[in-house]
Amino acid sequence: MVVSSGSWRADFERLWEQLAPIGRSASGGYYRLAWTEADLACREWFVATAAGLGLEVEEDGNGNQWAWWGTPGPGALVTGSHLDSVPGGGAYDGPLGVVSAFLAVDRLRAAGARPEPAVAVVNFTDEEGGRFGLACAGSRLMTASIPPERLLARRDPDGVTLADAMARAGRDPAACGPDDARVARIGTFVELHVEQGRQLVDLDVPVGVATAVWPHGRWRVDFAGRGDHAGTTRLADRRDPVLPLAHTVIAARRAAMERDAVATVGRLATVPGATNAIASRATAWLDARAGTAEAARRVVADVEAAARRAGAHHHVEVSLEEESWSGGADFDLGLRARLAAAVKDRLGTVAELPTGAGHDAAILAARVPSAMLFVRNPTGTSHDPAEHAELDDCLAGVDALTAVLEALR
Amino acid sequence: MVVSSGSWRADFERLWEQLAPIGRSASGGYYRLAWTEADLACREWFVATAAGLGLEVEEDGNGNQWAWWGTPGPGALVTGSHLDSVPGGGAYDGPLGVVSAFLAVDRLRAAGARPEPAVAVVNFTDEEGGRFGLACAGSRLMTASIPPERLLARRDPDGVTLADAMARAGRDPAACGPDDARVARIGTFVELHVEQGRQLVDLDVPVGVATAVWPHGRWRVDFAGRGDHAGTTRLADRRDPVLPLAHTVIAARRAAMERDAVATVGRLATVPGATNAIASRATAWLDARAGTAEAARRVVADVEAAARRAGAHHHVEVSLEEESWSGGADFDLGLRARLAAAVKDRLGTVAELPTGAGHDAAILAARVPSAMLFVRNPTGTSHDPAEHAELDDCLAGVDALTAVLEALR
Repeated sequence: MVVSSGSWRADFERLWEQLAPIGRSASGGYYRLAWTEADLACREWFVATAAGLGLEVEEDGNGNQWAWWGTPGPGALVTGSHLDSVPGGGAYDGPLGVVSAFLAVDRLRAAGARPEPAVAVVNFTDEEGGRFGLACAGSRLMTASIPPERLLARRDPDGVTLADAMARAGRDPAACGPDDARVARIGTFVELHVEQGRQLVDLDVPVGVATAVWPHGRWRVDFAGRGDHAGTTRLADRRDPVLPLAHTVIAARRAAMERDAVATVGRLATVPGATNAIASRATAWLDARAGTAEAARRVVADVEAAARRAGAHHHVEVSLEEESWSGGADFDLGLRARLAAAVKDRLGTVAELPTGAGHDAAILAARVPSAMLFVRNPTGTSHDPAEHAELDDCLAGVDALTAVLEALR
Repeated sequence: MVVSSGSWRADFERLWEQLAPIGRSASGGYYRLAWTEADLACREWFVATAAGLGLEVEEDGNGNQWAWWGTPGPGALVTGSHLDSVPGGGAYDGPLGVVSAFLAVDRLRAAGARPEPAVAVVNFTDEEGGRFGLACAGSRLMTASIPPERLLARRDPDGVTLADAMARAGRDPAACGPDDARVARIGTFVELHVEQGRQLVDLDVPVGVATAVWPHGRWRVDFAGRGDHAGTTRLADRRDPVLPLAHTVIAARRAAMERDAVATVGRLATVPGATNAIASRATAWLDARAGTAEAARRVVADVEAAARRAGAHHHVEVSLEEESWSGGADFDLGLRARLAAAVKDRLGTVAELPTGAGHDAAILAARVPSAMLFVRNPTGTSHDPAEHAELDDCLAGVDALTAVLEALR
């Protein structure tokens, strides 16, 4: 049991060091994509850690892992996050919430609390969507916010479907889908997460409470031109899909500036992708987010219009497909107030802040009372190895989460 | 021996059908990249075809294959092209020249000619540079236009060096390099090639003689920004490398238009390449060509200036590296006149035309008298499965090449 070390700091460091090498590339970036070897190794760590704490582990049909303290039943208090990463991501996004959840449960128990109602630590599957393109896959499947058939047929960049990936990992894809009984057991869900910006740095506060998650989505923009020789095809005869793609990238930034939103193209592809061949096809993936769903939708409409205009000019066909959409969440005001009071009481200070990042807590918020804590990130960087949290702030996060769990029981 | 069929048309079709399935993808595009399984299968076809014709086959230290009719020696007449393809390329670019060369030699012999001087059919290695980024690798190594160490250390997209790729194919990379004795044996080199534009279609002529190959090169433009979260990073705080990349793509087209040149970006990469992450790095590969070296260099300078301007605006570091450069070739006027006369005498018509495409003949032209024949391509498309030549035009090409070899002996 973790508690046996007698030092909360040492406990945190030990768990953190166990996770650190899993899926880390030579450049320091993490590749813990859903159902890969690294993801499976993270899952084994979850099982072993829960066992060390004497918690009962189960994995649901969607691949989400649950470690129970006490008998699962209605009104359970659930905390946790995810262990997967984006390609080349940082160490904290996800794992900090799972590690903190295990330690908070251990502290509750060490303080003499009883598991009534039961408390569960959760590791949601494929939160990042880094492999199959849909973020929060595990929580969406569980809460019936996406039909499983649609998701299971999605392919990773190597052409492997999610169904195949699960089968190769020894899971039954037929077991995926809505899990109302499980959702009904969750009384409250609290997710602790490293902050993905610098609001807490600017406020000089180690731990904050989330007010809202911005509406956000992902769109794939395909440009179909005509492959040809880069040296012999006259400019006037070309149907080069890379040119409207370039105009689309620039239009996305412009639309975001005009709409007080953010828009990003971080992934591109060309076919065949040869230096001396005009591409026959090109694809850009657009990520757009804003304070309101309407503003986010307007950004996407602006980008689509610009893409179609540039496509027409270059004789390239343009199509746009929504790969995912999340309406975001305004977290429950009463619950937020209880979290803020508990954190302030424990740490002496607290902040409230919205976020442009998606989270499983925002998916669950549509079904059960949900809330989030953020831990300060000195770089403000996220989805990159520069993402960081100081050890003292991580321990403050565990303190805050423990206080919140106590307050919510 | 091919001659045994008694039908030139059937001979052509048989050789063509033997090659057709090698390295063809489900979508019809060819992947015969240097030293891959498909390339090795093409090489086996070369050996078997030469053996069927009773020609002596040898492979030089650079991987170029030679099939000799008669005793190798000074003043040899060499014809051929290459069997490799760009990724997703067409069937004709390269193989048409090799198949036509075998058939022309067979016809010469059938007509009672003697191999004095000797005649050789050649398959140059890695003409497209589709795997290691340098076009005409085999002819450049042989003619000492590139030091072998530099090329052998180049990596393919999977990180395999050319040296490793050759070793895996059972070749000795240490044998690569200048081959003056071999170059000294070449009296004249004639390369037949499918046209890569529509000049012969517009002129209504099946076979043309090349006047010049445009100077051309390839450059890699790297953009180093800062990876971050697509949802939580304020626009003002971003160092997104994809934005200056997009401006660079647009600048390349504009520069080409202004300089009466062609410029293409057909290959792009982003790292880590996740939809919900601002890229930390992005790369665009630029292909630029013009009627003069000065004009091509000016295009690249324009593109570099635009890239650096956009990079400074977005706080992204920009670097540009020349991956290859070919000064092009003005083919020898006297030799061109002899080819044109021979083709006109045989087919009743001929045309002369320059090309923006690079060829081994342009590399060899710096050391030995070299010339090229082009065969009409009804689509004008190249480096794409739509690339084509009608069978009658292919046979006219063999006729023309046979007449040229006769005239040059």
